[in-house]
Amino acid sequence: MSNPSILILPGDGIGPEVMTEVRKVITWFGEARDIQFDVSEDLVGGAAYDKHGTPLADETMARAQEVDAVLLGAVGGPAYDDLDFSVKPERGLLRLRKEMDLYANLRPAQCFDALADFSSLKRDIVAGLDIMILRELTSGVYFGEPRGIFEEGNERVGINTQRYTESEIERAARSAFELAMRRNKKVCSMEKANVMESGILWREVATRVGKEYPEVELSHMYADNGAMQLVRAPKQFDVILTDNLFGDILSDCAAMLTGSLGMLPSASLGAPMANGRPKAMYEPVHGSAPDIAGQGKANPIACILSFAMALRYSFDMGAEADRLEKAIETVLSDGARTADLLGEDGVDPISTSEMGDAVVAAL
Amino acid sequence: MSNPSILILPGDGIGPEVMTEVRKVITWFGEARDIQFDVSEDLVGGAAYDKHGTPLADETMARAQEVDAVLLGAVGGPAYDDLDFSVKPERGLLRLRKEMDLYANLRPAQCFDALADFSSLKRDIVAGLDIMILRELTSGVYFGEPRGIFEEGNERVGINTQRYTESEIERAARSAFELAMRRNKKVCSMEKANVMESGILWREVATRVGKEYPEVELSHMYADNGAMQLVRAPKQFDVILTDNLFGDILSDCAAMLTGSLGMLPSASLGAPMANGRPKAMYEPVHGSAPDIAGQGKANPIACILSFAMALRYSFDMGAEADRLEKAIETVLSDGARTADLLGEDGVDPISTSEMGDAVVAAL
Ligand SMILES: CC(C)[C@H](C(=O)O)[C@@H](O)C(=O)O
Ligand SMILES: CC(C)[C@H](C(=O)O)[C@@H](O)C(=O)O
Repeated sequence: MSNPSILILPGDGIGPEVMTEVRKVITWFGEARDIQFDVSEDLVGGAAYDKHGTPLADETMARAQEVDAVLLGAVGGPAYDDLDFSVKPERGLLRLRKEMDLYANLRPAQCFDALADFSSLKRDIVAGLDIMILRELTSGVYFGEPRGIFEEGNERVGINTQRYTESEIERAARSAFELAMRRNKKVCSMEKANVMESGILWREVATRVGKEYPEVELSHMYADNGAMQLVRAPKQFDVILTDNLFGDILSDCAAMLTGSLGMLPSASLGAPMANGRPKAMYEPVHGSAPDIAGQGKANPIACILSFAMALRYSFDMGAEADRLEKAIETVLSDGARTADLLGEDGVDPISTSEMGDAVVAAL
Repeated sequence: MSNPSILILPGDGIGPEVMTEVRKVITWFGEARDIQFDVSEDLVGGAAYDKHGTPLADETMARAQEVDAVLLGAVGGPAYDDLDFSVKPERGLLRLRKEMDLYANLRPAQCFDALADFSSLKRDIVAGLDIMILRELTSGVYFGEPRGIFEEGNERVGINTQRYTESEIERAARSAFELAMRRNKKVCSMEKANVMESGILWREVATRVGKEYPEVELSHMYADNGAMQLVRAPKQFDVILTDNLFGDILSDCAAMLTGSLGMLPSASLGAPMANGRPKAMYEPVHGSAPDIAGQGKANPIACILSFAMALRYSFDMGAEADRLEKAIETVLSDGARTADLLGEDGVDPISTSEMGDAVVAAL
């Protein structure tokens, strides 16, 4: 059998910097554990636009469909702010999600004990936090038609369409329940069923799928209340199931609870391929952070943890994923901090590359 | 000139309880300050449905259009969960907002110093917090057509439409800039212009309106980042301008920063009426809290502060509003706490009605 294949798309801003550190980790797995990956690399986002005039070339898209896992850095930046909507860096990312049909976006929000004091929330509210947000990623208002800016009378109107079919909701819900079965057996589904019919259908389908998982406790919450509860008492949750747009906001909100966005990975999974592995893309939750790009200040941990998720969900290497996560915990407990993780206690930050080296050393 | 008129709609759950306390305050203004209001009362939400089979009777709607200000308690509750969407308690509230054309929803998030330790956020992050969210309230996905659950092939699809015209964005943006002029001269506009065309139009119009207010510093932020920044460093904001759905979530998120939802008022303002006063409805941000309804546990402060906003925005009685807000601060500094405001230090909570009495006594 050939080696598992990975396509690396570093993208823009700090994407290439953090990806360099992931490569060190991949190399370590090859050398120290004899786990080999076929790694290729290509452009996405602004970097792809600069070369090809499109944020994702068709060849790159085709390659992404073939590999076992895509690792993506980040896309976007002020240099591309004035681009037409259709070629914005984000469209490259959205195209990957849509065409690979990556409907289940897993966003864990875990608070590392060594960082609990760094959160803007009080320690007892976040210490030990371990929740998983399952965000539907291929539908909803991100992709619904009609969309656009249209003339209407003597003015313009901006239109987007929130749109969910039963089967779209169903497969996302099923992923959430499957995850919950391997965790603490609780799913909280969030929508605005009091205001939106799409939310009513969401709630109905989630309830129906829930009946197939009698061991899992299902609750429903309006998304506004969900945001509030995430800040008030996030440990009440295990798995949160929500749609594309609510998931975007709620997961960023949850991310911030853990102290730094520089810590948070994500996995976007689709249907199984012929080899049994799911279509998959892994990316840090953080963006391209143009303000610190190229300065060696970025925290590579979110991207390294995204690779750990790849080990777990694409390559069935749970023990190796544990090992990598453990190494990161060790490094943090030892006090290594990139600039984003600095509180007031006057520790000196280490660089992106020093953090990557520290993780490899702890492996 | 006749007395200013107020229509009280207590609604469901804790709505009637907290409104009883507001009535005490209104009575105090009549007796102690000789400021008289013509107060009438009617049903909304589940209470209206129980009597009339609709969450807002036409007569009530007509009366709301005539008065100087509507004070609303809260709507909804589990007893109404299985009602058809078209007669849900929330539809009564949404009808008032829409037909009164209350496009500017003002949601202050202020952290009372006496409560700073009660927030789940660290004291230094929230102490002194004073931000204002301006949420557009009459359009967007709450009201856009088409909407509903439709058959499509052999399954159903839930559809809602996000829809903003230039003039809708413009008037909301203008309200935000006007507010900022009387505050710290900063507006941060939040949307998802990287994903939604309606967000692109939003950003463009906000920028255009901003040109009329050269003294005000305008910034733009994606709504997901906005949620994150609210948790990370909320004091960076002055006025936040956002749409109906993002505003719903972001304002609940901001609300939680202040320690208790039981503290937060809101004003929903429309165009000026013949008498120069804006169409206006005032309501606490909290919901009907069915779990504590009827137990005398509810915190009436959010509703009393909503009346203070009425004094300020409808009746041009800024000094009286200040007086009322001051009284609440005094009561809190003296240690009075309803159950929602209790930390771990073992103080005994006072009841809804004791809190109302304490505020009146401090006036
Ligand atoms: C970059 C952007 C298109 C994206 C999104 O809105 O989904 C990002 O915010 C995310 O959460 O992955
Ligand atoms: C009750 C509900 C319809 C309402 C909304 O979604 O606007 C509430 O959450 C609010 O924020 O006022």
